Amino acid sequence: MTLFAEHRATLARALGAIDRREYWTPYPDSPRAYGDDAPVSGEAAFQERLGARFELGQPAQGWTAGDESSPYGIDLGITYPNASVATLLDASAEAQPGWAAASPDARAGVCLEILDRLSSRSFEMAHAVMLTTGQPYLMAFQTGGPHALDRGLEAMAHGHRETTRLPASMVWSRPQGRREPVAMEKTWRVRPRGISVTLGVSTLPTWTAYPGLFASLVTGNPVIVKPHPATILPLAIFVETARGVLADAGFDPGAVLLAVDTTALPIAAELVMDPRVGIVDYTGGPAFGSWLEANAAHAQVFAGKGSVNSVIVDSTDDLDGMVRNLAASFALYSGQMCTTPRNVFIPRAGISTGDQHVGFGEVARRIAAAIESLLADDDRASDILGAVKSAATIDRMAAAAAHGDVLLASRPVKHPMYPAATVRTPVVVAVDTPEAHLDAGEVFGPVVFLVATDSTEQSLALAAASAARHGALTWLVHTSDDAVAAAAEDVAVGAGVPVAFNLTGGHLVNHSAAFSDLHGSGANPAVSAALTAAAFVVPRFHVVGVRRPAG
Amino acid sequence: MTLFAEHRATLARALGAIDRREYWTPYPDSPRAYGDDAPVSGEAAFQERLGARFELGQPAQGWTAGDESSPYGIDLGITYPNASVATLLDASAEAQPGWAAASPDARAGVCLEILDRLSSRSFEMAHAVMLTTGQPYLMAFQTGGPHALDRGLEAMAHGHRETTRLPASMVWSRPQGRREPVAMEKTWRVRPRGISVTLGVSTLPTWTAYPGLFASLVTGNPVIVKPHPATILPLAIFVETARGVLADAGFDPGAVLLAVDTTALPIAAELVMDPRVGIVDYTGGPAFGSWLEANAAHAQVFAGKGSVNSVIVDSTDDLDGMVRNLAASFALYSGQMCTTPRNVFIPRAGISTGDQHVGFGEVARRIAAAIESLLADDDRASDILGAVKSAATIDRMAAAAAHGDVLLASRPVKHPMYPAATVRTPVVVAVDTPEAHLDAGEVFGPVVFLVATDSTEQSLALAAASAARHGALTWLVHTSDDAVAAAAEDVAVGAGVPVAFNLTGGHLVNHSAAFSDLHGSGANPAVSAALTAAAFVVPRFHVVGVRRPAG
Repeated sequence: MTLFAEHRATLARALGAIDRREYWTPYPDSPRAYGDDAPVSGEAAFQERLGARFELGQPAQGWTAGDESSPYGIDLGITYPNASVATLLDASAEAQPGWAAASPDARAGVCLEILDRLSSRSFEMAHAVMLTTGQPYLMAFQTGGPHALDRGLEAMAHGHRETTRLPASMVWSRPQGRREPVAMEKTWRVRPRGISVTLGVSTLPTWTAYPGLFASLVTGNPVIVKPHPATILPLAIFVETARGVLADAGFDPGAVLLAVDTTALPIAAELVMDPRVGIVDYTGGPAFGSWLEANAAHAQVFAGKGSVNSVIVDSTDDLDGMVRNLAASFALYSGQMCTTPRNVFIPRAGISTGDQHVGFGEVARRIAAAIESLLADDDRASDILGAVKSAATIDRMAAAAAHGDVLLASRPVKHPMYPAATVRTPVVVAVDTPEAHLDAGEVFGPVVFLVATDSTEQSLALAAASAARHGALTWLVHTSDDAVAAAAEDVAVGAGVPVAFNLTGGHLVNHSAAFSDLHGSGANPAVSAALTAAAFVVPRFHVVGVRRPAG
Repeated sequence: MTLFAEHRATLARALGAIDRREYWTPYPDSPRAYGDDAPVSGEAAFQERLGARFELGQPAQGWTAGDESSPYGIDLGITYPNASVATLLDASAEAQPGWAAASPDARAGVCLEILDRLSSRSFEMAHAVMLTTGQPYLMAFQTGGPHALDRGLEAMAHGHRETTRLPASMVWSRPQGRREPVAMEKTWRVRPRGISVTLGVSTLPTWTAYPGLFASLVTGNPVIVKPHPATILPLAIFVETARGVLADAGFDPGAVLLAVDTTALPIAAELVMDPRVGIVDYTGGPAFGSWLEANAAHAQVFAGKGSVNSVIVDSTDDLDGMVRNLAASFALYSGQMCTTPRNVFIPRAGISTGDQHVGFGEVARRIAAAIESLLADDDRASDILGAVKSAATIDRMAAAAAHGDVLLASRPVKHPMYPAATVRTPVVVAVDTPEAHLDAGEVFGPVVFLVATDSTEQSLALAAASAARHGALTWLVHTSDDAVAAAAEDVAVGAGVPVAFNLTGGHLVNHSAAFSDLHGSGANPAVSAALTAAAFVVPRFHVVGVRRPAG
């Protein structure tokens, strides 16, 4: 309760922002806001981790490095507690009753303190995220730190609101005409769903995991965090921080546990199939996501499992602005965001740009040129592209040429600080077989397809078909025609894809703002529920009514 | 919008009651509140239905009586439009865009008007429910009419609230230091999930169907109502009323359609497996409910599929009150409610009643005697028992003796008005094999098992095991020991079963009050979600964000 009293105002402001959808954050995303020393001490804290054991004080049978590696080519050498699935589940189950018995306010206090302490470690987290995922530094700071914390706070606020809807207790009285009223004393108790397992992703580990983690924790479920075997450190820092707060608040720190595995010996399936598991939050490829949905029927599965995002180009009043904005969207973190556009649908007959008509070939050439120009300088390119995390992404880039004509080839970029880093510019491919191209699915990474279509109508139909089949989190539509805009909006709503129009400045379709934008919708296979809608939170608990004759 | 303006105050009061959980209803459950003429004209309206075609003006290929029959032994002879599955789905899909495009307020206005018109037909509905389901008259009036309307309004209010959480539109502005703020104009659009199919039950057709129907309608989904083939009329009256309101409000009445089938040629599986179906609301046996959950993966399935409710007798200060209250719970509608207690767990060593100790045999005898006394007079018994709907129930009664010793045999009761009615008193069976008895599952109907256990602790453990395996909607605990009460409450919460304590007066555990009590919890197999929690409503739609540069 002490913790909650300290943080109550933050929760109230978060709930206000959620209702009004206004810009707000308690975690500034400008590095300057944290003072001059923070970057240095954060980097030092990260450096101390390297080559060392990451002590968590949780039950374990030894140490493991998982498959952790850095796309910047440095040696991490960090080892983590290596615990069996049975050890993890037993420890989680042991912590469960105490955490379930805590009041919603007490749980919210713990969550808010975890967020606060994580915020004070945002530079350490920035380096951890950057060096494990390949994100460029500024993005790693923002997306790994404050923006992830925003999404965690947002989900936590929803969870607190939903678990405190009913009165703590009341007397219900039903008139009975001339007879005495029937009076019942009623209470409602929140029943958390069960052990919550988070299965992390290698590219945006904290931003994708925090919403589910904080939603599960605030609704009373203990969590087991199993990071992607190639990106462990960022979520290990979360686990360390959370366990520290739990212990300080007098709870069993077993309510938050780290699970580490390797690609060769994965434990996710065994972990989630235990009947004590009530919730699974997953971000990753569609194959395992679909397996979870089909097999973990005893649990509530929230799966983020890939998306093929579309740009629909109909017409524009600002061709320069359009291609610059697109180039930035494609280049940021080498297209390794779940919100990066994958396919740009452009009418084969070309588009109107207000004063003139521009053919497909010229629009395509301008997009390619904008990418080339943005990334012409290696130092600047490195700051935007970051590094490519996975060898499979390099393979996909090589295979991309098979889909059409390469308009712009990828080139290796020399990183100024990390000579062994895997840095690549995007490959741009023109595609002339729009229908067949849907079979390509998600080509994750720095690959841009410019797809020639018969018309904007066909572009929209293909984007919708793609969303239904592969999922989609973002659409960007460029049109200066109000009727086309209205039609496109209807198609986007039908496909369940959040849509932005005519972005030509610095605001990218990749970005969604916590407390305001819904990330995804739940209406196509990309994600099970929007971040953060009530549907992401309410399945994490049940409410049980208790009644007694009053008086 | 006109309809909404008329009914806005009702919605506001409903939302207030939901938050405060106070007693409230706009639909009085005292027949006297409706004036002297209402019962007579309601009965006349029912009589006019008999032997006639039930015209609905919906597309159909002919007429069918389904398998409708009356347990009161009268001939109904009503025929309904007989439409193919394809006809129904096509008509529903045609009505879909217009209904989805209506505003939440417009949809709420239509729903409130449907509820209002149904309320004015509550006596017609009472006869329809009574004569098709076998409910006694007063219960048919209350449960078929006002109490069902309460639950429909409650679900509708939740749906309206959840679909109007986000602002209609707003401008989001993000400060950028010395640069101009980034400003985006944002809207959020509700995307209804898809065609909603309601699969009705033969015993409480309106009370169980209205929550899902009104929740789906208010969130923008068209509905196809397929009643149980043996109990069609009550939901046909709903469909007729709803279609009338839709037409009057300028909507395609195809947003509400009736589907009729027979036990020999069921259409439910074909209907729900169409990919256009987004929601299924089912009440009925566990076999088809589990099939739906396993197979209709493209849809959101809400299944109410049976429950084995427990009474745990530990001790009591009022043995007379306890056995009278239990007798009424068992007798009401011959145990054909999903909330009727099935098993009474009593310690083999007996219980304390304050001043004395009473053995198991004596407690059992007292319960049997209370049932016998309550139902001694045939006329009074008929008013409580109603009639037995299904031949399968009669078979289960005959088979009940195999589970133990019959303490009270069932006897046929002569109904004063309906000589051909199937009226039976409950059979009471003492069971001495508590663990093995869990295999019995739900023995639906007028069958009471008094189960001897080693201790209250074992009683609670068995009740919890039964709830986890077969589902449970209600527990009733009798204890005068505060420590036992606290322990029992914890076990009930863990099992996800709403629990009442020490009911000894006229309030029965069978009853749950709309706006106040949650019916079920969703935490055991009895129901997918509580009536009405947010989890029952929010999966019926998604929200899609739309953003444009502002200014």
